[in-house]
Amino acid sequence: MTAKRTRGRARSPGRPRSDASRSAILKAAYQILQEGGFAGFTVEGVAARAGAGKATIYRWWQSKGTLAIEAFLVALAPRLDALPQTDSALADLRAHVHRAATIYRGRAGQLLRELIALGQEDSQTSRVLRTDFVGPRYGEAIRLLERAQQAGEIRRDVDIEVLADALWGPIFHRLLVSRMPIGRSFVEKLLDLVLGGVARRDDARAAGAKAPILTTK
Amino acid sequence: MTAKRTRGRARSPGRPRSDASRSAILKAAYQILQEGGFAGFTVEGVAARAGAGKATIYRWWQSKGTLAIEAFLVALAPRLDALPQTDSALADLRAHVHRAATIYRGRAGQLLRELIALGQEDSQTSRVLRTDFVGPRYGEAIRLLERAQQAGEIRRDVDIEVLADALWGPIFHRLLVSRMPIGRSFVEKLLDLVLGGVARRDDARAAGAKAPILTTK
Repeated sequence: MTAKRTRGRARSPGRPRSDASRSAILKAAYQILQEGGFAGFTVEGVAARAGAGKATIYRWWQSKGTLAIEAFLVALAPRLDALPQTDSALADLRAHVHRAATIYRGRAGQLLRELIALGQEDSQTSRVLRTDFVGPRYGEAIRLLERAQQAGEIRRDVDIEVLADALWGPIFHRLLVSRMPIGRSFVEKLLDLVLGGVARRDDARAAGAKAPILTTK
Repeated sequence: MTAKRTRGRARSPGRPRSDASRSAILKAAYQILQEGGFAGFTVEGVAARAGAGKATIYRWWQSKGTLAIEAFLVALAPRLDALPQTDSALADLRAHVHRAATIYRGRAGQLLRELIALGQEDSQTSRVLRTDFVGPRYGEAIRLLERAQQAGEIRRDVDIEVLADALWGPIFHRLLVSRMPIGRSFVEKLLDLVLGGVARRDDARAAGAKAPILTTK
């Protein structure tokens, strides 16, 4: 548990840690983020709501940006990371992308947008965002895609890293750049479009072959 | 020319405009952005370098964010928008995506990252970014993809909007979220992966058919 909750953060040796106080601070921080976004987020406000001292917060988090990111992650991780496990890695992947899109199209997406924006200005926040949020999720996506590739559901010659970008990139593009809706039908079409090009050739041919294929190349 | 330079901005009727002064302000603004990014960007600094008054700047631009965006666009548009025109819309598209990636992987990408971050916090900047930058470029991409579809280079059943997201989204995802390099080989693999799935079935079959296809479905 502790290892999971402190993922990506160096733990100072010999420093005792109050898990209850940490949880209270993270919970208060997420509540404040949900209520007013990052604009209304202050360490003072979090300390007051959690019944903790500011010094305690600054002992555990380097900045309000890193606190906000950990609060966001601890609150969202159970939903974001609960990977489906069926016989088909490709079906699991589709379910996973749909679940992420469902989360990002709501309030959590607005918060993530603010945190990513903050990360562009503040290198510390940016680093934590990448080590604690982007990195682990990217790793999960890669493992899922590798499983699909090993199971023969994705062609051997497909670059898995590029495929991960092709699946998640458009969702973040809509969230951060074009602000177009990330609807279920968009995600479904995206999955069809991208995965249609990387499925094992036999499958792709079968899927595409509405008319009989009689010619040879 | 005027229409192009003021794209997306309402022009007040009857107000005379000094094009030379406008150009000097935009040029000074872009120089300052290039030197120190948005962190060192002030209306005072731009006014001083352009030999213009602050009041003049605020008469033409609502905020320093909108000034920064227009300066960025005026400087980059000639490179970003110079679309290749060959017989193959698909070849033009590939060249276009490569050109955009080349621009974004350099200093201009860092600036764009800062401007997009700024747009998350400031709704006015966000709106200008979308109407003046994202909107027109998205429109260009859609027209290019429609040309490819009409020419039969892309299947009729492919949703062009989703395809545009699948091509540009991963580049912005690397720029804004994962900060992974946007190298030429990444872009080439991305184009192969995404376009491989949407090419006309005959082309896809031909491209995929390393072994003769003898079976029928």
